[in-house]
Amino acid sequence: MTSFVSDCLKKYSVSIIGASGYSGAELTRLLLRHSNVELKKLYAFSQVGNCVSDLYPALGCDKAYQLYSGETESDIYFLALPHGEALQLVPSLVQAGKIVIDLSGDFRLKNPEEHKEFYKQAKSPEAFMTYGMPELFREEIMREKAISNPGCYASSIILGVAPLFLGTESSIKVRAINCTSTSGISGAGRSNKTELSFSEMSENIRAYKVGVHQHTPEIMQALGTSTKTPSFDFTFTPMIGSLVRGIYSILNIQLDSPAEEEQIMKLYHNFYKHAPFIRVRDTMTEIKHVVYTNFCDIHIARVTESGSLLIVSALDNLLKGAAGQAVQNMNIILGLDEKTGLI
Amino acid sequence: MTSFVSDCLKKYSVSIIGASGYSGAELTRLLLRHSNVELKKLYAFSQVGNCVSDLYPALGCDKAYQLYSGETESDIYFLALPHGEALQLVPSLVQAGKIVIDLSGDFRLKNPEEHKEFYKQAKSPEAFMTYGMPELFREEIMREKAISNPGCYASSIILGVAPLFLGTESSIKVRAINCTSTSGISGAGRSNKTELSFSEMSENIRAYKVGVHQHTPEIMQALGTSTKTPSFDFTFTPMIGSLVRGIYSILNIQLDSPAEEEQIMKLYHNFYKHAPFIRVRDTMTEIKHVVYTNFCDIHIARVTESGSLLIVSALDNLLKGAAGQAVQNMNIILGLDEKTGLI
Amino acid sequence: MTSFVSDCLKKYSVSIIGASGYSGAELTRLLLRHSNVELKKLYAFSQVGNCVSDLYPALGCDKAYQLYSGETESDIYFLALPHGEALQLVPSLVQAGKIVIDLSGDFRLKNPEEHKEFYKQAKSPEAFMTYGMPELFREEIMREKAISNPGCYASSIILGVAPLFLGTESSIKVRAINCTSTSGISGAGRSNKTELSFSEMSENIRAYKVGVHQHTPEIMQALGTSTKTPSFDFTFTPMIGSLVRGIYSILNIQLDSPAEEEQIMKLYHNFYKHAPFIRVRDTMTEIKHVVYTNFCDIHIARVTESGSLLIVSALDNLLKGAAGQAVQNMNIILGLDEKTGLI
Amino acid sequence: MTSFVSDCLKKYSVSIIGASGYSGAELTRLLLRHSNVELKKLYAFSQVGNCVSDLYPALGCDKAYQLYSGETESDIYFLALPHGEALQLVPSLVQAGKIVIDLSGDFRLKNPEEHKEFYKQAKSPEAFMTYGMPELFREEIMREKAISNPGCYASSIILGVAPLFLGTESSIKVRAINCTSTSGISGAGRSNKTELSFSEMSENIRAYKVGVHQHTPEIMQALGTSTKTPSFDFTFTPMIGSLVRGIYSILNIQLDSPAEEEQIMKLYHNFYKHAPFIRVRDTMTEIKHVVYTNFCDIHIARVTESGSLLIVSALDNLLKGAAGQAVQNMNIILGLDEKTGLI
Repeated sequence: MTSFVSDCLKKYSVSIIGASGYSGAELTRLLLRHSNVELKKLYAFSQVGNCVSDLYPALGCDKAYQLYSGETESDIYFLALPHGEALQLVPSLVQAGKIVIDLSGDFRLKNPEEHKEFYKQAKSPEAFMTYGMPELFREEIMREKAISNPGCYASSIILGVAPLFLGTESSIKVRAINCTSTSGISGAGRSNKTELSFSEMSENIRAYKVGVHQHTPEIMQALGTSTKTPSFDFTFTPMIGSLVRGIYSILNIQLDSPAEEEQIMKLYHNFYKHAPFIRVRDTMTEIKHVVYTNFCDIHIARVTESGSLLIVSALDNLLKGAAGQAVQNMNIILGLDEKTGLI
Repeated sequence: MTSFVSDCLKKYSVSIIGASGYSGAELTRLLLRHSNVELKKLYAFSQVGNCVSDLYPALGCDKAYQLYSGETESDIYFLALPHGEALQLVPSLVQAGKIVIDLSGDFRLKNPEEHKEFYKQAKSPEAFMTYGMPELFREEIMREKAISNPGCYASSIILGVAPLFLGTESSIKVRAINCTSTSGISGAGRSNKTELSFSEMSENIRAYKVGVHQHTPEIMQALGTSTKTPSFDFTFTPMIGSLVRGIYSILNIQLDSPAEEEQIMKLYHNFYKHAPFIRVRDTMTEIKHVVYTNFCDIHIARVTESGSLLIVSALDNLLKGAAGQAVQNMNIILGLDEKTGLI
Repeated sequence: MTSFVSDCLKKYSVSIIGASGYSGAELTRLLLRHSNVELKKLYAFSQVGNCVSDLYPALGCDKAYQLYSGETESDIYFLALPHGEALQLVPSLVQAGKIVIDLSGDFRLKNPEEHKEFYKQAKSPEAFMTYGMPELFREEIMREKAISNPGCYASSIILGVAPLFLGTESSIKVRAINCTSTSGISGAGRSNKTELSFSEMSENIRAYKVGVHQHTPEIMQALGTSTKTPSFDFTFTPMIGSLVRGIYSILNIQLDSPAEEEQIMKLYHNFYKHAPFIRVRDTMTEIKHVVYTNFCDIHIARVTESGSLLIVSALDNLLKGAAGQAVQNMNIILGLDEKTGLI
Repeated sequence: MTSFVSDCLKKYSVSIIGASGYSGAELTRLLLRHSNVELKKLYAFSQVGNCVSDLYPALGCDKAYQLYSGETESDIYFLALPHGEALQLVPSLVQAGKIVIDLSGDFRLKNPEEHKEFYKQAKSPEAFMTYGMPELFREEIMREKAISNPGCYASSIILGVAPLFLGTESSIKVRAINCTSTSGISGAGRSNKTELSFSEMSENIRAYKVGVHQHTPEIMQALGTSTKTPSFDFTFTPMIGSLVRGIYSILNIQLDSPAEEEQIMKLYHNFYKHAPFIRVRDTMTEIKHVVYTNFCDIHIARVTESGSLLIVSALDNLLKGAAGQAVQNMNIILGLDEKTGLI
């Protein structure tokens, strides 16, 4: 882009707190190329003094990681910290009037009890920020400055079933959802765990946290219910497989009464007709179709006479499941085209 | 082993028809090292004139592939052919009094209508052979000479749920099973399909044949019901992932009434107490735990108050899901220790 | 980018002939997002009627592939065809005054004898176009409209040694180069060969075409010599490994007389000081540092007293080794910033 | 095998010190199935109290890891410890008259200066044991009870070039060897390093320790020279790639004078005619041809008029490059068929 073009755009200043993890690196990549922002500071406690180019040479960025100590000079702050750390930092950023997008689970749950159960940490009822899933809550996001960015599994699952709960078909009622999701290993972060080493995970698959994964309550909450008094049965089995990026969710859904395939198709197409990153596809989707993109692909694979649905959803855990959705939320808050910097 | 030892063992002669595919290659490997058999002939239509060492140098075998034209000189025949081809060859082998183990789907289903629907081929009601799953049908297998070897997905799923149907707990009744299985790509055979190339499948996942996979009717049949008049809801979603070998099945089961975890654990341990290749494990299993072995690992990951179970089963699709189970069947028919050549 | 900005840019129309292969897909991706061009037509003989979104859903492009039958309506044509096919199509495009960038080997070699030997095809001495490696031939490229885009291995190797031949250090003379390069399997194109299937190539490595690879003569030519009367010994061993993208070249170089490490470092930094995509790195480079980028990383790993150098070069075979370099060439021809659409 | 057969075999008792790493696990697997030994104790400092089945369920072994504190009750001891630790333990085992096979580098080098330089540790000149490469030193191994097992890269490289140095062709003289070897990541052991995590190494390649790898001096020593006063130029570039097992070495060799391809072929076939695990192959070898076997495949890919050779060697780093070769050495010391338990 010529400098003339750059000059005529209003550039917001942006900083990332927790910039050295995989989500932080993807944020860095996206924001460096975003035409409406200028990436100011990259904060990363464990990498102070190192450069982005030391950890992620592919980003082509020579900025150094710094220690965050309360600065509020940027217009926008992204936080990509381990769970628990944002709880301390967000309040003062909000008070300073900053746009804040937090990628952790700290502010996702309204119910402190559920937070306590799934994150093993107490928090106050005020520690909640609007759930940044534009396809469900675009209106709320537009009115907010501080957003809690959804979890990766949660994004994949919620987007795959939301039309059944929040769509216009009042006759449809969900009785049960069985969800099996396979995630790329980058979902575990930049890790030094033996069980995530190449030698252990190549050509391997491993389920974990069956029925107790912390994304469960945010899925229920987004669908209008809770883990305490659920309006439908929900089983979630997360797995990691032999891939770096992507989440692939197989959603087995039982409805209260049978539905026609056409009716379901129409419901989904309608629900997502203004959602540029959701593609309701007629053919089977794959991880390869969505990695390195902000798309979430949804395929309605089967609708049976007994009222069961089989829906497959695929997205990139680091993009639509983290950094991409975060930038999408920023775009909406700033009043920009939702797709800016993401296509 | 010294020649003295070899001499004092009775050696059966064995041949493989369809020896050049991946299951055929695993049969070759197992039978070459089996102390009670001598591998005679390797038949492979498409590879006539080539040696095993050309296709599978790791096997360390210099035999040449030949054209099968009706020979019956071996004591035992394994057939590892594309579906449909064994239907023609098996009858004369059986008539000649041979031990026959067929790895295809041709003789698995009792009901010709189900066969027609799932294999798109007519067959007579006689075209059925005892289903060679030793953990369920050991007595029958011992009495037979001709066996139909189970499918890979079917093995993984049946073994994961069989105690609920065939175990001693009469109070347990299954209402629904949702099964999501990820298979290694070797399950598709030695393939020249673009969609199975490394560039397409590396770091990819792809579901296929949702609800219509041909292993469905054999699963139902082994569990004492059928796809036509099923005694429980069954959904099966097969996937291929970024791995060569292994099947990993996530089995969501809904019981008619709640059960205690201890009760289920006991049921499984009892059911498999004489099954040397089934390991009911207390901790999560992984593909890495079973590849290159004949084990099927089963982990009861969750038992809820509402009567839902989450069971994970893992096996090597080419071994317990094909060639290993075939050799296990042969051992049983011959009256040998079931584990011979498999540990 | 707002529509206002788009309007004030002159957009060139671009078409791709041979758009359905992996290089064609990368060209599609890059050109769709390039601010100075409009992607007009995608020609692909074998995919006529299919959409980009059928083959490459990640590109988010709904254009249909068409049959090329001599159209010349676009300003710029990229050809990404199997070797031999561009020979027929390029002349009329050139005659029509189009900007032509050919990604095949058809127009790379000046010497028809070498072309005959390595490509098994006769061609006339006129069938040569300026070799589009900007870091070596930027001046020539600026003056041309028709360019032959370098091969992927050739790019990796030439860039790794060029300063020794074309740099300012007249005292340095190369006696021998032993090059071992590992390529991602995408280098073989969208393939349906059994030996490139996932099951065959996962966790595998395979050398091929040892000493006879067709990129050999273009490497020699770019370095000012030829395979017929070489001014230095050259051995090239290409391999494919268990990865989709990237080329990693280990360059063992023997100089006529010893050199100091500092001298070599300076030579390289000088040679590439105006090359935005070449990074002479102080630490070891990896495939991960360059995939999905147009960078070529070069690391001088060792300089010994006996005059031997060990240089490692890494690039993405589909970007700096194909589509990325092609767009870089287009930018130069159009007088744009070389990096446009590539950062 | 029936118990009758077992009874009539003399069984040696064997223990492994350092049993919990990848080499230790492969030793466990091989020794459990070896007809002439009984696996007694598995010592592993870091895993005391854990079972083999916790770490390596695929081995199907329920033994617990113990703390080694000087026991000498077994007939045979394998040591698979981090470099430096065997130096302390071996002397008392030797003194107790045990058969000792050490898989570390501690006793490989005769020259304490070279050991100091490459292992950063002082050792006495006595700290040397016969180099256990049967194809070169079978006679010496037969006479010894304590053996130093070769390194994985060293095995791959030495076997690839040994006939040129130790064969019967006195006219052949090597001037230079440039070696580029790609290793599976298991070569780095059971690791918790971030840079060896799946997310970092999938689809990646990384060279390291260029020119300074500790296997260099043992290669030189086995070929009858040293790093201090080398009789030929030697460059070694190790790399890790996107695979768990295997080493693939590309050996560029410059001879003093040209040789005929036939002469080289004959030399290699002759040299290895009594070596059951070395296969001199007419066609290109691959990692897939040797993993999970004790074979080392060698292919003479090119012999040029200028006297340069291109030889490719492939083996499994954990078998012929570690545990398999260790068992082969044990077989030779015990007077058994070299292949026992390895085919």
